[in-house]
Amino acid sequence: MAGTATAGAGTAVPGGASGEQASANGAVGRAPGNVAELCLAARRASRVLAGVHTDTKNAALEAIAASLGANARQVLEANERDMQTGVESGLGDALLDRLRLDAARLEAIAGAVRQIVALGDPIGEVIDGWRLPNGLDVRKVRVPLGVVAVIYEARPNVTIDATALCLKSGNAIVLRGSSMAAHSNAALAQLAGDAATSAGLPEGSVVLVQGGGREELGELARQSESVDLIIPRGGEQLKAALEATARVPVIYAAAGNCHVYVDRAADLARAETIVMNAKTQRPGVCNAAEKLLVHEQVAERFLPTIAAALGGAGVEVRADERAMAVLTEAGGADGVVAAREEDWPEEYLGLTIAIGVVGSVEQAIEHIGRYGSGHSEAIVTADTAAARAFQLGVDAACVYVNASTRFTDGGEFGMGAEIGNSTQKLHARGPLGLRELTTYKYLVEGDGHVRV
Amino acid sequence: MAGTATAGAGTAVPGGASGEQASANGAVGRAPGNVAELCLAARRASRVLAGVHTDTKNAALEAIAASLGANARQVLEANERDMQTGVESGLGDALLDRLRLDAARLEAIAGAVRQIVALGDPIGEVIDGWRLPNGLDVRKVRVPLGVVAVIYEARPNVTIDATALCLKSGNAIVLRGSSMAAHSNAALAQLAGDAATSAGLPEGSVVLVQGGGREELGELARQSESVDLIIPRGGEQLKAALEATARVPVIYAAAGNCHVYVDRAADLARAETIVMNAKTQRPGVCNAAEKLLVHEQVAERFLPTIAAALGGAGVEVRADERAMAVLTEAGGADGVVAAREEDWPEEYLGLTIAIGVVGSVEQAIEHIGRYGSGHSEAIVTADTAAARAFQLGVDAACVYVNASTRFTDGGEFGMGAEIGNSTQKLHARGPLGLRELTTYKYLVEGDGHVRV
Repeated sequence: MAGTATAGAGTAVPGGASGEQASANGAVGRAPGNVAELCLAARRASRVLAGVHTDTKNAALEAIAASLGANARQVLEANERDMQTGVESGLGDALLDRLRLDAARLEAIAGAVRQIVALGDPIGEVIDGWRLPNGLDVRKVRVPLGVVAVIYEARPNVTIDATALCLKSGNAIVLRGSSMAAHSNAALAQLAGDAATSAGLPEGSVVLVQGGGREELGELARQSESVDLIIPRGGEQLKAALEATARVPVIYAAAGNCHVYVDRAADLARAETIVMNAKTQRPGVCNAAEKLLVHEQVAERFLPTIAAALGGAGVEVRADERAMAVLTEAGGADGVVAAREEDWPEEYLGLTIAIGVVGSVEQAIEHIGRYGSGHSEAIVTADTAAARAFQLGVDAACVYVNASTRFTDGGEFGMGAEIGNSTQKLHARGPLGLRELTTYKYLVEGDGHVRV
Repeated sequence: MAGTATAGAGTAVPGGASGEQASANGAVGRAPGNVAELCLAARRASRVLAGVHTDTKNAALEAIAASLGANARQVLEANERDMQTGVESGLGDALLDRLRLDAARLEAIAGAVRQIVALGDPIGEVIDGWRLPNGLDVRKVRVPLGVVAVIYEARPNVTIDATALCLKSGNAIVLRGSSMAAHSNAALAQLAGDAATSAGLPEGSVVLVQGGGREELGELARQSESVDLIIPRGGEQLKAALEATARVPVIYAAAGNCHVYVDRAADLARAETIVMNAKTQRPGVCNAAEKLLVHEQVAERFLPTIAAALGGAGVEVRADERAMAVLTEAGGADGVVAAREEDWPEEYLGLTIAIGVVGSVEQAIEHIGRYGSGHSEAIVTADTAAARAFQLGVDAACVYVNASTRFTDGGEFGMGAEIGNSTQKLHARGPLGLRELTTYKYLVEGDGHVRV
């Protein structure tokens, strides 16, 4: 079925036809109606996948990892074509770096797949169970969602990462990558689909939809009969586009406007370490700190030190009125700019931080409630009452006491891997690992029970 | 604040002003912009509610139950006005019966509230927890969703049932009842809000939005900043309206097109009891059986008996070709009509059943996969292999072995009560009890941990 319209991925094309496949996939995406057909193919596969044994799913993942090594040349050739287009179209260095694959990166991707093999299979877990007074036995058992669609930017590694997580959790996956990575994604999806079917998974387990732009995105978002969940990995623009059109449930991984609050009872040396780590260890990610709130009673001692350290690390400091007054008084306001109202809700994703002074832990909680994005929030304090108030009062996926916000991550949390990070409250919050890609059903057993 | 625009419910109006309150509430609903304001009031209340102790929440529920007794006269007067309007506008008997309140029904509603008092508080439950290799302690702790909006038909009891479930689970509630029950709902929401605040819950914990029709429904469905979840309790029309406009996450309680499959290894006496119970014990509800599938090897023995029993109970039987042939052969096809393709996906909600003959448990699973609504599905069999295949292969919220589908219910399942029954896979499936009205957050504690 190689090259047919309904099975762009998941078919066998041995030996280097990835370039042609890329075009075929692109064409599939552009032909109207085919998004629906591809999603239906995934739906059919999902019915089989739900009952596939762990051993078979693991064998499929091992086959994908092996195939990444065996077909490295074709994948890197396909990636080279995307890179050329990227350079020609003036893509920035950071984006080109995200797009780029090399032998070491392919090896790392294969390693990540093997890590998922090592994780426990969530399917079939009995989450809860009890016997009713009438003798009926009820079990709440974990089952796959069915078909998960992942929409992502020009990071080809996501093609494999997301596929491995979905297959391990018994879901079929619909991949919708960026057109900037079309050839890379096509080669990787093809390889993953082939490896999966060679290991015994049904055709349609891995489906790639690409090209066609917004119209096609809208069509995907309307496939509520065949797609159970959409996970968009992208910015606010993608979120807005989906919010306007989606009939399929969506888990948004929205911005991370994360705060560190340094309490009056904080160990200030520890506070400095945590703030510097949260802000500078990797400033371009969603769990990096964007804001620093400092209790007024430690502002004079802490602000000059932290502002100097941040400045020394190349971070632009934006201070509210009170913080600016303290810094000016201490002679440490060089290079510090005044924070505006627009700073507080903003996710910089870079070497910028806004600093505010608050009068209490309650004021910090209130500020975070108003401006935070519900991602990751931290308090530094030695005071149990302040820690408890912060944990109770802050409504976010992850609330830290005396630790950096940078730990919000499926890998760090011991989930093995993540397909995204949810800042919404329904279904799953925080890192989305294998279990978060599942639902459950109730199995009820009786011996002729009827309701009276 | 009685009668102000932003607090139609939750304010004190002692002594019989429920009629005026009803109008005030109606006016609130109709004034543009006020839906947003009311939802914001609920959002503010929810921040406080998340930290309210179980004792206080239980006291609020006790106060609501007591107030139903103390203010019975006003509530029944308000209900009388709705009933008069209902009669004048030609409402059918079944709908009038759903709308009607009397002293006994108010007592039953109060009893249901007291049952929720007796349930454990889900908030603060540690769902999971572990220590990371770096020493960070992670706890996954249950917290309220925040603000839950419930949209419901002209059943005034839902006003109190839903309020009690939301308050007990630490959520503020936005009630959007039917205009047919406007006076009843206004009186009940007023009473519940007053009782809640008198017991120490914040103003805005119970908010009523009504009147204004589709436009206002759309406005409510767009309050994604202040409303965390919408639970519509209504038909397919309401679902379609919400699907087209909602930006707030919605849990749909869609139709229940439930099947009973009688396997070749079924105890046929038991099968008859289960089918009759599932079909006739209460035919107007979503967990009643709408379809009967019979294995071909027992069709000749079972179909004439069950068709006669169903006919005797006033059930219209619609048979597929094979079932009709068996019945005709046995001389038991009197009154049986031919099933059409449109029968298979239909939810009759009445005394009708469609019967089909299948060749295997796999065919039954396939039929249910194609036409079922994912609600409740049952197999009757003495064969463990068939039972296991059915449990694994049927993708529904509740899968029964040798029991009636009628048990799918929060009360029956021991959850104490339910706010609805989800047929979707995201967040919660099956009966929606207290826990299903919650989300979680991760609390992470360290002693200066930073990411390396």
